[in-house]
Amino acid sequence: MSSQAPHPTLLIPGPIEFDDAVLQSMAHYAESHVAPGFVKTFGETLSMVRKLFQSSNPAAQPFVISGSGTLGWDIVASNLIEKGENALVLHTGYFADSFATCLETYGANATQLKAPIGERPSFEEIEQALKEKPYKIITITHVDTSTGVLSDIKRVAEVVRRVSPQTLVVVDGVCSVGCEEIAFDEWDIDVVLTASQKAIGCPPGLSILMLSGRAINTFKTRQTPPSSYYASIANWLPIMQNYENFKPSYFATPPTQLVHALHTTLSQITARPMSERYAIHAQASDRVKAAVADLGLQQVASKPENQAHAMTAIWLPEGLAPPDVLPGLLKRGVIFAAGLHKQVATKYIRFGHMGVSVTDPNRSDVDKAIAALKEALTEAKQAKGL
Amino acid sequence: MSSQAPHPTLLIPGPIEFDDAVLQSMAHYAESHVAPGFVKTFGETLSMVRKLFQSSNPAAQPFVISGSGTLGWDIVASNLIEKGENALVLHTGYFADSFATCLETYGANATQLKAPIGERPSFEEIEQALKEKPYKIITITHVDTSTGVLSDIKRVAEVVRRVSPQTLVVVDGVCSVGCEEIAFDEWDIDVVLTASQKAIGCPPGLSILMLSGRAINTFKTRQTPPSSYYASIANWLPIMQNYENFKPSYFATPPTQLVHALHTTLSQITARPMSERYAIHAQASDRVKAAVADLGLQQVASKPENQAHAMTAIWLPEGLAPPDVLPGLLKRGVIFAAGLHKQVATKYIRFGHMGVSVTDPNRSDVDKAIAALKEALTEAKQAKGL
Repeated sequence: MSSQAPHPTLLIPGPIEFDDAVLQSMAHYAESHVAPGFVKTFGETLSMVRKLFQSSNPAAQPFVISGSGTLGWDIVASNLIEKGENALVLHTGYFADSFATCLETYGANATQLKAPIGERPSFEEIEQALKEKPYKIITITHVDTSTGVLSDIKRVAEVVRRVSPQTLVVVDGVCSVGCEEIAFDEWDIDVVLTASQKAIGCPPGLSILMLSGRAINTFKTRQTPPSSYYASIANWLPIMQNYENFKPSYFATPPTQLVHALHTTLSQITARPMSERYAIHAQASDRVKAAVADLGLQQVASKPENQAHAMTAIWLPEGLAPPDVLPGLLKRGVIFAAGLHKQVATKYIRFGHMGVSVTDPNRSDVDKAIAALKEALTEAKQAKGL
Repeated sequence: MSSQAPHPTLLIPGPIEFDDAVLQSMAHYAESHVAPGFVKTFGETLSMVRKLFQSSNPAAQPFVISGSGTLGWDIVASNLIEKGENALVLHTGYFADSFATCLETYGANATQLKAPIGERPSFEEIEQALKEKPYKIITITHVDTSTGVLSDIKRVAEVVRRVSPQTLVVVDGVCSVGCEEIAFDEWDIDVVLTASQKAIGCPPGLSILMLSGRAINTFKTRQTPPSSYYASIANWLPIMQNYENFKPSYFATPPTQLVHALHTTLSQITARPMSERYAIHAQASDRVKAAVADLGLQQVASKPENQAHAMTAIWLPEGLAPPDVLPGLLKRGVIFAAGLHKQVATKYIRFGHMGVSVTDPNRSDVDKAIAALKEALTEAKQAKGL
């Protein structure tokens, strides 16, 4: 039986339901951040982050930093690109706009390559754009949490290496790491930035990044100093290297309890092959997508190949808005999220199906949510006379 | 009886020992960051931050952001001062050097006013410096964790208002908030930045700030845009205002569990007058300082008026270094910190006496630590033949 107090099941695209052991790690007693016990925990955690990314290249470097996923954008924007350099931002929803704004804050020229809502830029468009001017970085939102659109980062990376080999491939993996396949070394990716609270299954408060040797080298050969302090790779790189070698090191106090929780969830995740974890998420996703179709509903992500496997953004029937449906779900013990993409936020809802809600065989969260959605929709339509 | 696993008592100047209820809040079940339950928790937490600073001026604004205390420097440096403007940094230890580096990263001209180790710049020197050129901000480390030197921020603020009234008074309160007196409104302070893991008694991972109306206005009348994204007041101000008004709002996912823990500890702290809390810390400090003198030892902070009330930096006897003493303390169930001030780090140790270790009448942490220190020193001297 769960040690958690009774509560509605949180099925939004992050934060997600937590495993009991992960939450218990959050209540770890006080430790010095430079004492051997915590140093070991942090060092092991960093090594497990490598496994999470299926990476064994020692030139790559994981980072775990106190902050939200958003901080990862600042780390990219203030370290890996300089004032006046170009960034190509592939747009599949809300988060590309924000990443572009962050890049521009630090002086980069961000060019957005947009697709209609629910779609993604084509490989031909990407290739064409890369040929037009030299881009220091290209950014791809692996799964845009606002639309549920999945990008094919493997193929994008292939296009980049063929057309513009020096361009850094930067993946926003906030809603994909731990549920969508990522082969960091094999696909020749330069940066994946993510956060703790989605498919990694840890409470929010950790910015997690993986940088390739190429990315580290790009940072080291900057013409100008990094344009931030808290987000500076120069400040964090020695800290991460030291902890991973079990040496204490200080730049800023690490969030010791969150690191314990990350250690616990990564121990669980990396105990099994990542391929198995991806397959479980894909199976659950198939089940959700089939149920959505059975209800006569469409997804925001319009094509099977661009639909995320750990969340589903669902267009509501004409005449219904999120406030008509979400309370009916809550009444049935299930929490979904409202829309987030500004242009269409009132027309769809988002269902997160990741982490223990799909991997723990003792939980029936997805079935419960599908049943609740069906009932809540019927109820909402009746109330509106639809 | 404590619900925590047995562990040595952590008496470093942060992180500190935690109250059981605070740690239990860290294990709170998953919640949406925009659902009514969490919105209420966050809103109440922000209101309690005002009480922590004894502030009732509605023009002032508290901020609680995912990150370490260090992030507070970036928030100041990228929002409240612009490229080429001057910052006067009062130096009482390690943290002034770092704050100055952060300010320079964002383009400010930082002038450090230094004092010998263990002392602080005089009010005359501060007045003289303020008359030499226009300073946009002055920064004061309230308690420098590397030296245990306490600054008199009330009197510094008085000098500033008399000599250079437009200069923003910025206090680094990482090691002072919750244990040293701060009357934010009454003393006319513009910024206090702090972190969760010291005298506030919450696990690490929260950057906490209080900004005056003058500081907010300085930000709003900038000539250039803020030079960071994650640390931008423009991004966070509406979020904090909305949550405090119990309206959900999104810029980055807040660290929900840490916010619950902060809510719990602030509920405990603000249930009693702040003056009582300061007095308890002062009494414990007197006891520690007397014991240190009884052992024939000197403090790094050389004068009674500049000695912090929640930590004591203690010079070791000639011939002893931290590795000679800290293991003997650990053997007796007590953890102190080694020195941190680069020039003298091997010559002193640091004893943190704050939070539940001094406020909880059921704990005897300070007595235990004093006894352990006495024994460990005797043992270390014998081992060295001193």
